[in-house]
Amino acid sequence: MNGAQALFKALTDAGLDTCFANPGTSEMHLVYEIGRTPGVRAVLCLQENTVTGAADGYARMAGKPAFTLLHVGSGFANGIANLHNAGRASTPMVNVVGANATYHQPNFCEHELINGRLADLARPVSHWTQEARNASELGLLAAQAAQHARMGSGKLCTLIAPTDCQWDPALAPPAPLPAPERPTVAREVIEDVAALLGNGKKTALLLGSHALHGEGLELAGRIAARTGVDLLGEMWIARLARGEGRVPVRIVPYLREHAAFFLQGYEQLILLGAQLPMSTFAYHGAPLNKVPATCQVTTFATVDHDLQAALQGLAGAVDAPAQPAVRTARAVASAPTGALTADAIGQSLCLLMPEDAILVNDGATCSPPIVNRTAGAPAHDYLDGSRGGALGGGLPLALGAAIACPDRKTILLQGDGSGMYASQALWSMARERTDVVVIVLRNDNYAILEVELARVREQDANDKMLSMMHLDDPALDWVKLAEGHGVAATRATTAEEFHAQLESALGQRGPRLIEAKVTDSIAPFVAMIRGAR
Amino acid sequence: MNGAQALFKALTDAGLDTCFANPGTSEMHLVYEIGRTPGVRAVLCLQENTVTGAADGYARMAGKPAFTLLHVGSGFANGIANLHNAGRASTPMVNVVGANATYHQPNFCEHELINGRLADLARPVSHWTQEARNASELGLLAAQAAQHARMGSGKLCTLIAPTDCQWDPALAPPAPLPAPERPTVAREVIEDVAALLGNGKKTALLLGSHALHGEGLELAGRIAARTGVDLLGEMWIARLARGEGRVPVRIVPYLREHAAFFLQGYEQLILLGAQLPMSTFAYHGAPLNKVPATCQVTTFATVDHDLQAALQGLAGAVDAPAQPAVRTARAVASAPTGALTADAIGQSLCLLMPEDAILVNDGATCSPPIVNRTAGAPAHDYLDGSRGGALGGGLPLALGAAIACPDRKTILLQGDGSGMYASQALWSMARERTDVVVIVLRNDNYAILEVELARVREQDANDKMLSMMHLDDPALDWVKLAEGHGVAATRATTAEEFHAQLESALGQRGPRLIEAKVTDSIAPFVAMIRGAR
Repeated sequence: MNGAQALFKALTDAGLDTCFANPGTSEMHLVYEIGRTPGVRAVLCLQENTVTGAADGYARMAGKPAFTLLHVGSGFANGIANLHNAGRASTPMVNVVGANATYHQPNFCEHELINGRLADLARPVSHWTQEARNASELGLLAAQAAQHARMGSGKLCTLIAPTDCQWDPALAPPAPLPAPERPTVAREVIEDVAALLGNGKKTALLLGSHALHGEGLELAGRIAARTGVDLLGEMWIARLARGEGRVPVRIVPYLREHAAFFLQGYEQLILLGAQLPMSTFAYHGAPLNKVPATCQVTTFATVDHDLQAALQGLAGAVDAPAQPAVRTARAVASAPTGALTADAIGQSLCLLMPEDAILVNDGATCSPPIVNRTAGAPAHDYLDGSRGGALGGGLPLALGAAIACPDRKTILLQGDGSGMYASQALWSMARERTDVVVIVLRNDNYAILEVELARVREQDANDKMLSMMHLDDPALDWVKLAEGHGVAATRATTAEEFHAQLESALGQRGPRLIEAKVTDSIAPFVAMIRGAR
Repeated sequence: MNGAQALFKALTDAGLDTCFANPGTSEMHLVYEIGRTPGVRAVLCLQENTVTGAADGYARMAGKPAFTLLHVGSGFANGIANLHNAGRASTPMVNVVGANATYHQPNFCEHELINGRLADLARPVSHWTQEARNASELGLLAAQAAQHARMGSGKLCTLIAPTDCQWDPALAPPAPLPAPERPTVAREVIEDVAALLGNGKKTALLLGSHALHGEGLELAGRIAARTGVDLLGEMWIARLARGEGRVPVRIVPYLREHAAFFLQGYEQLILLGAQLPMSTFAYHGAPLNKVPATCQVTTFATVDHDLQAALQGLAGAVDAPAQPAVRTARAVASAPTGALTADAIGQSLCLLMPEDAILVNDGATCSPPIVNRTAGAPAHDYLDGSRGGALGGGLPLALGAAIACPDRKTILLQGDGSGMYASQALWSMARERTDVVVIVLRNDNYAILEVELARVREQDANDKMLSMMHLDDPALDWVKLAEGHGVAATRATTAEEFHAQLESALGQRGPRLIEAKVTDSIAPFVAMIRGAR
């Protein structure tokens, strides 16, 4: 057994069987082993942010980590933005990164970083970073990475594999290490929270991470049924179960001005696997908090706690009924006509989305009306594309989710600006025959930046400023971009056209792309900001 | 004056007037200042590896740094691969990276890294990394960055600009700091090297960095004329003056097997601004050195020395004549016919390339015959796309070079695999009306990896292994990809078609893209590796 074989034995023994890869010379021994291992699926991606974003989407839906194969420092770096999103989403992941042979690294050849080592790049965006020093250690570290990735809510592990550690003889890796148990919330804390829910104050329970789908969400609904607590969800959601029959959760808005309005009046906020809601960015002279100063904030459980056990305990403490009192009803919708607004797209989706779809949102300013309209669609899972604020997660996430769930339809709301950060993911969607419908919300604009510029300018923005956020010179042609990557595509400019194209796309196996030229403007956002001053 | 204004005053006072940008919310104050400053050109790019690669190409050709505008950790990370190439090329550059307000960073909102700070990501790929702590310091650091970027051969400087340092009141920055002088080589070293050149041994002078173009190359040619020393150039060249009338330089090959053959027989190797030639990667049981063990290696000057002064001193010490003895003659070429091989593309280029073109090479395995054929083309500058081994530098480099030299034709040899790492650069080429002809060498393959796999496999590679390096399922359509980004494109499948399309593309102002479906195989590379065992 050589080191590459030990590494793969450790990962596959631990149940990791899906590899998203963009290999290079230093990973050829690993490619060779993947090639000889029938049970491992290898998904080639043409740029590394697709690799890492897809591994994120896969793990969010599969409930277990994928592993990635990345090439030295520059290949790893290309994947950092979506690793950052994955790390902030507490996604379990094991990155395997090839590096030059241990004895060759000091020679400072081309791939060595000018002012550090590969591990220095990996550490800031990984929960766990190790570099093997010999072949046997490579297998051992792989077993540890596969275990550590399942710590708490999920951890991002990066294992650096120098080439000599791949080809040298290695001891067999240890048997799979046991998945670590999540820490549980103390009984006293549960009783304190139960008391808070009974004190008559206006209270919200802010859910994050695993509390937003599956049994956790059901428990929250039962607790609400007894106590009247409002169920909120943190923004930039890793995974949310929503649609018909699901326990409804209201999501805290992105813009602080919206969120402050949304949260006003709450006297108590209880955090369960969620962070304190704050403004993503600071603005000159503006407050940071979304939560009213008079609201008492209590941390019930952190993201790494066993959230389901915490909710189970709370349900018992408040004597919750067996069923939630409220479940989302199927919204009445009709086929839209006229201008192709985001709201029209939402109507079509609400009407046409199949049962048990996966809805991925990387739609920036265009998507809120669509998200609103699909709240009453058939039951589905909802994933936000930029959990860590790094735009461009959408296409890779949808790719990975579709690979995790081949029998479900994946639908992606993709902004045109954000879509260009990882447009290469389209090719892997075609390569893997994924059943994805990509809806590109084309407004030829980094519209969110035009909103943000409105905050800082002393007068109306001039043409040069706006040219740094407008994408209309030249306009991107997403039909050609999709076809160039091997994905069939159509263009819609009216609500009727979009509706017909969506019906057609959903009626066949994907991938398909629809370029939707939306007519919405940013005026409501700007008005909200100005009104809040 | 606020901090953003102080920063821009410092940069523009130091002569930095070209900004490659992909801004986000935390850079809006900077966008506002760029928008109000008529003398600064702002080039919007849709992904950050285009930003950094274009700044590299710009500086290589303009001889002065550009500055970049990048958005927080994830935006910076997206640009790291081409920053790495730039750092290894000793390209001067100033990166300005927005960050959250100093007082908001500890709140650990979405953009904060899970296990470190933005500076931790920047340091491994920057020669100089600083984060401003207040607005006045932002202006001061900008002045220092503009100075430090010009240290030695060129340095990569990253300045982190928290938003409050942008909007707070600032003192005016200092007047531009003087460009630091490059250290000179000691007189005794020059005399020692002169003695080596006179001792009758078979000797090569290996040139790197600034010695490969301009006055440095002329001086090397004059020294060779007197001493008979062979002039070699290091591979992955930042900038080489070549073609008709230029002093000829032979480039050390990439593969160690080629290079060992190329360098055999040399008794002395003198390094001038170049590293010792070694194999980029280690292979099991294979040697690393390209230079024969019996060859004496002498470092004449490092990349940061004043290479021109060193050559001037040596020319004096050996009493070099006023002119080189050898200059490259115009090669005889004729329009190719038949199969579209890389050699045929080289013939067409040799025949049709205009005087004073810029030839950028990111063509991987396809490009060597083209590079050979263009040695006798009209005088031109040649730039390698992946100086630090990170593929995908080509499109961004060509963009930046074309912006630096608007009156020259830029021609890019782009591999199809490597081209997909930063395909978004095509849009900026169209936006800026750059005069670039992109030649995509399409072989539907990461062919270099198929060569490398041949080294490690114990038997013939199986289909699964090859599927991790083949790009033919689906095939990429570069005509549609180009048109989707706003660049006119054609497809050539024969030598005649290519020749006609190249003639047409060179005859008008670009950008234009030609997808050239090449017929070359990797057999010669594999045979060379196997023969050398």
